[in-house]
Amino acid sequence: METSGMAHSEVHYFQSYNHHGIHEEMLKDEVRTNTYKNAIYQNAHLFKDKVVLDVGCGTGILSMFAVKAGAKHVIGVDMSTIIEKAREIVAVNGMSDKITLIQGKMEEITLPVDKVDIIVSEWMGYFLLYESMLDTVLWARDRYLVPGGLIFPDKAHIYMAAIEDGDYKEEKIGFWNNVYGFNYTPMQKVALAEPLVDIVELKAVVTKPCLAYSIDLYTVKVDDLSFSVPFQLEVERNDYVHAFISWFDIDFSACHKPLKFSTGPHAKYTHWKQTVFYISDYLICNKGETIRGTLSSKPTAQNPRDLDVRLDYQFEAADPKRSKGEVLTYKMC
Amino acid sequence: METSGMAHSEVHYFQSYNHHGIHEEMLKDEVRTNTYKNAIYQNAHLFKDKVVLDVGCGTGILSMFAVKAGAKHVIGVDMSTIIEKAREIVAVNGMSDKITLIQGKMEEITLPVDKVDIIVSEWMGYFLLYESMLDTVLWARDRYLVPGGLIFPDKAHIYMAAIEDGDYKEEKIGFWNNVYGFNYTPMQKVALAEPLVDIVELKAVVTKPCLAYSIDLYTVKVDDLSFSVPFQLEVERNDYVHAFISWFDIDFSACHKPLKFSTGPHAKYTHWKQTVFYISDYLICNKGETIRGTLSSKPTAQNPRDLDVRLDYQFEAADPKRSKGEVLTYKMC
Repeated sequence: METSGMAHSEVHYFQSYNHHGIHEEMLKDEVRTNTYKNAIYQNAHLFKDKVVLDVGCGTGILSMFAVKAGAKHVIGVDMSTIIEKAREIVAVNGMSDKITLIQGKMEEITLPVDKVDIIVSEWMGYFLLYESMLDTVLWARDRYLVPGGLIFPDKAHIYMAAIEDGDYKEEKIGFWNNVYGFNYTPMQKVALAEPLVDIVELKAVVTKPCLAYSIDLYTVKVDDLSFSVPFQLEVERNDYVHAFISWFDIDFSACHKPLKFSTGPHAKYTHWKQTVFYISDYLICNKGETIRGTLSSKPTAQNPRDLDVRLDYQFEAADPKRSKGEVLTYKMC
Repeated sequence: METSGMAHSEVHYFQSYNHHGIHEEMLKDEVRTNTYKNAIYQNAHLFKDKVVLDVGCGTGILSMFAVKAGAKHVIGVDMSTIIEKAREIVAVNGMSDKITLIQGKMEEITLPVDKVDIIVSEWMGYFLLYESMLDTVLWARDRYLVPGGLIFPDKAHIYMAAIEDGDYKEEKIGFWNNVYGFNYTPMQKVALAEPLVDIVELKAVVTKPCLAYSIDLYTVKVDDLSFSVPFQLEVERNDYVHAFISWFDIDFSACHKPLKFSTGPHAKYTHWKQTVFYISDYLICNKGETIRGTLSSKPTAQNPRDLDVRLDYQFEAADPKRSKGEVLTYKMC
């Protein structure tokens, strides 16, 4: 195959850059930020005179969107020192009387109100749930949201597909077979057990996508963030499969005209990219065949925002010599 | 100007990837790793039957190079848990009897020998000194190196130049003027005070390079890592100047045939890239004019591996209306 699933990209390890770089990257993610902006601005009738809670407010962009849309008051909460910058930004935009910013853990601080009408939050992590703040959003929902209150966004959907990725897999995994003449296979085991967050080109996808799991933020419980769900991938062309990939879509269904965005390989770039799970070797698949499996994810014992992910797949090919199955475990931590 | 000084690059924030990704990136930096390999392999006569200390050994690559070059024994020291992987790697390469790996702080652990003949270390950080291990290498030199012992590498040189970088500066700094309709200038102040580590294209460089500071690892003292040195940049074409840049060269002068590599914009890519210091506005320079200044760097009070950098420049143009001077302070932390 000539396709390489991954677009190559440089890696920055510059800590001090990262400090603010993460906020720059999120703000410059126009799919993300414009969808929030549209969801809020196009629904000013929902925000007018409402009390809004912004969970994990960062630099305060969603809080300011809500004020512009007519909110009576917005409370922004974030654990990070970025909230000091948010305070300066809110001030230079003349909104200090409309936005209250609180640094701390949502579960530990005291809000200046007993209830809020709307929760806005950009809580999504890589693979939706890695380092995500969803648990905090749910805690805030249960404690603060009035009955009938709204959540922006309110639905998330995890999708799966399989990709041909021979060249890049060789670069990322095969590399460790011979490093300047030495056997580095101990690093290979580590590399295989860590999902890769990277840009997957659409042409690398060899199956139809499959919706694996959906989350409704009005009803989901923290326990539902540990899940084990079946998936079924229909092969669309004769090709090899080197990895499964996952991405998520986000819905704002409280909007007058529902808005959504996708982080899939078919959609415009977002900073979430896609998450790649390499299998130990590869599959030889023909059009029309099906890969069946189970995707399991749960927070690790050590840290509720790290994940243990399991992929249990069975590929039954027309020719049994091509059939294969594995149970793969990954750590996102 | 049509040139853009920076090559655009994606930013990964995937922590678990970074864990091992930093080692992957360093090993895949062929300029770096091959120069060390050549310096060691081409000088087997210097390594034969010697006791070698590898300061900050990481995955153990330099330790294994030294064994292959005939060292009697190598001691690798690293604070990070990567040393567990190094142990596995050394074992699968059959060198466990030749390499002793110790996890800990060099200043606190006890080595199994009283003296070593050679110190090898890849201690360099961005801007040479940011998050660098040089202080530890110097401590190890003073405590363990025999008189007449060798250090690989043994010299480092910091260079400066100035660049035209209008487009990218607008993207990185100008961006904050208007973020989805809001004034984000508080973030701009932060962005200007943080040097940027990125790839500078050679065509963006508008001055001759200038050697600002040299370090001889045999004689340098920790105090010398706080310095204030003059520089003088001769403008090579009529252009604008938006930033100063810095890079470093590394010498292995103990080699039979001295080896070196450069991390400058004229040289092959390394993971150190270049370090960019934006000035507050820009200079209008003509060919033959000179920018004079002082580069100062010292560890911050909080962390000896973070840096306070100061750039004090004076540009005296043929037309005094174009003359300008500033004192700029940056934090790398």
